[in-house]
Amino acid sequence: MKKTYLFAALSLTLSLSAVGFSANAEDTVMKDAQAQFQPVPDKAPAIKGNEATPDKIELGKMLYFDPRLSKSGLISCNTCHNVGMAGADFQQTSTGHGWKQGPRNAPTVLNSVFNVAQFWDGRAKDLAEQAKGPIQAGVEMNNTPENVVKTLNSMPEYVALFKRSFPGESDPVTFDNMAKAIEAFEATLITPDSKFDLFLKGDAKALAQNEQEGLKLFMVHGCVECHGGVNMGGDQYYPLGVVNKPSEKIIAGDKGRFAITQAKDDEFSFKSPSLRNIELTPPYFHSGVVWELAEAVQVMNDSQIGADLKEGDIGKIVAFLKTTTGKQPQVLHPILPAPTQATPKPSLE
Amino acid sequence: MKKTYLFAALSLTLSLSAVGFSANAEDTVMKDAQAQFQPVPDKAPAIKGNEATPDKIELGKMLYFDPRLSKSGLISCNTCHNVGMAGADFQQTSTGHGWKQGPRNAPTVLNSVFNVAQFWDGRAKDLAEQAKGPIQAGVEMNNTPENVVKTLNSMPEYVALFKRSFPGESDPVTFDNMAKAIEAFEATLITPDSKFDLFLKGDAKALAQNEQEGLKLFMVHGCVECHGGVNMGGDQYYPLGVVNKPSEKIIAGDKGRFAITQAKDDEFSFKSPSLRNIELTPPYFHSGVVWELAEAVQVMNDSQIGADLKEGDIGKIVAFLKTTTGKQPQVLHPILPAPTQATPKPSLE
Repeated sequence: MKKTYLFAALSLTLSLSAVGFSANAEDTVMKDAQAQFQPVPDKAPAIKGNEATPDKIELGKMLYFDPRLSKSGLISCNTCHNVGMAGADFQQTSTGHGWKQGPRNAPTVLNSVFNVAQFWDGRAKDLAEQAKGPIQAGVEMNNTPENVVKTLNSMPEYVALFKRSFPGESDPVTFDNMAKAIEAFEATLITPDSKFDLFLKGDAKALAQNEQEGLKLFMVHGCVECHGGVNMGGDQYYPLGVVNKPSEKIIAGDKGRFAITQAKDDEFSFKSPSLRNIELTPPYFHSGVVWELAEAVQVMNDSQIGADLKEGDIGKIVAFLKTTTGKQPQVLHPILPAPTQATPKPSLE
Repeated sequence: MKKTYLFAALSLTLSLSAVGFSANAEDTVMKDAQAQFQPVPDKAPAIKGNEATPDKIELGKMLYFDPRLSKSGLISCNTCHNVGMAGADFQQTSTGHGWKQGPRNAPTVLNSVFNVAQFWDGRAKDLAEQAKGPIQAGVEMNNTPENVVKTLNSMPEYVALFKRSFPGESDPVTFDNMAKAIEAFEATLITPDSKFDLFLKGDAKALAQNEQEGLKLFMVHGCVECHGGVNMGGDQYYPLGVVNKPSEKIIAGDKGRFAITQAKDDEFSFKSPSLRNIELTPPYFHSGVVWELAEAVQVMNDSQIGADLKEGDIGKIVAFLKTTTGKQPQVLHPILPAPTQATPKPSLE
């Protein structure tokens, strides 16, 4: 697995002049930004091998909101990835079946379709594969594929919608198709039109001066190396603690991607999280122990960058990061199918 | 407290002719029904002393969906009164803080504005008073009014919306105003246009013959005495077990309204639940132990009515009850205010 965690300050053409902004300086910042970021598109991207028809998206939305996918009947995808809370849950680490706490902070579902893979350690190759994990995890929804399929088959409205969503399949109500429908819905959860996106599209006035200065700092100090692209992260794995190991409180004994690959190089490596809408989704890091964005930026500088940031620089970077908050998805709450006598009863055990 | 649990079969003018329906017989059923039920209105009713402005309704919706009203940050009103699941939770009794099970089945929020009082035992005089209960209950949201107000005050978007919703108040962010806003939103959660409502409005063809026969049985045997009016219940308290005491499994040691009034007459009395949308909200009874609607009807006949129902009569009553399913409310999921550093952290303890 290729790793790029270059500290490319020297290779960048930006000058960190403290003199302020001329029209030319603005142009340079914009051009440099356009070379390293892309705006969130207005429409959900196509998913390879999973055509997103309106039926399938609607089915996926119902499944996303249906707590009956959990053994207890209490927990849905939306519990930990709340579409009204920027796709996350404002918890240190998520709480699931039996009031158990999971090991990691819930990453946002928003824009997650742009990630190279899913979960903090990238163990799911796409959103469909991801969706199958928490449904079965003992500390999350604690269900089985068999019980999920039985639940879905018990409700004629679901069966009809699976048939329409997966035409031509003789047995469309499957755990895999459930995951594909959820993926189709989740791909619609994107946040275009942030101030930063308007800037990337050419509107120099979309960012105030201190926000542009924050953007410059973000690029010149190499934050962009792990947090560039359309999602400002989510595209690769990087070790935590390049310059200095962060505190044990932050690492929390988590070896990250090492648990998946068993490769020494992957020890303490994580997929770089997307920084889009980041102000809306405290707490931060896989361990969820840092609640303040400025502190998170400071920790990243100390552990990954090692720059000698001047007083106020952190504030400027935070001001820039807040410009990435985009239009939050408008979701009409689905009306879920009525249960029948064949619907498995919930169990708290 | 006046109690009316008359078995008014003799006083009704219906004839239970098995010969079938003439146009006149249909007219009679309709007229009798119109005398004892009212259709759900198309618009939310006004709430005395709580003007429902668009701002207040929007605020109430946000509060209704905000899990940060609970101590854990995990449980919102919508958890147990899911607008996508007919306003209930498909649980025997609701599960709350610490994975504890509450003592009673969650009544639906839909059309609850039409109830004379709230909770199974009527201990809250209205929806605003009701809303304050679960937020503080140890087995539900386990929060305190102080922590709720602190939470709301920590988010400028909430503060602004409280100001607009309660104009002229010097300190609008209060626990009471929170409850009033939730009430204003909940009053919008009504389900007009059921087949039964169309029938009540004069469309004789809205109910099929077996459904009309079920309606006749429902009226002639006196079910309507406790389940009439606009909400088909919710208007008064009645003892469970007039003819025969139901099984201990159903009663589950719950003395109902007695716990509130300490009056001997109220022992095992409950507010009659609304039967609207009843097919969508199993399980049934305060104890939630009966999952099948036909069984619930049979239990009610055995304990409250004592009629000698013919084979198929229960089926007809169930067919009628299913015609009360109305148009479910369309709710755009709210985008909740971003937390700030002042927002109290969630606690699972």
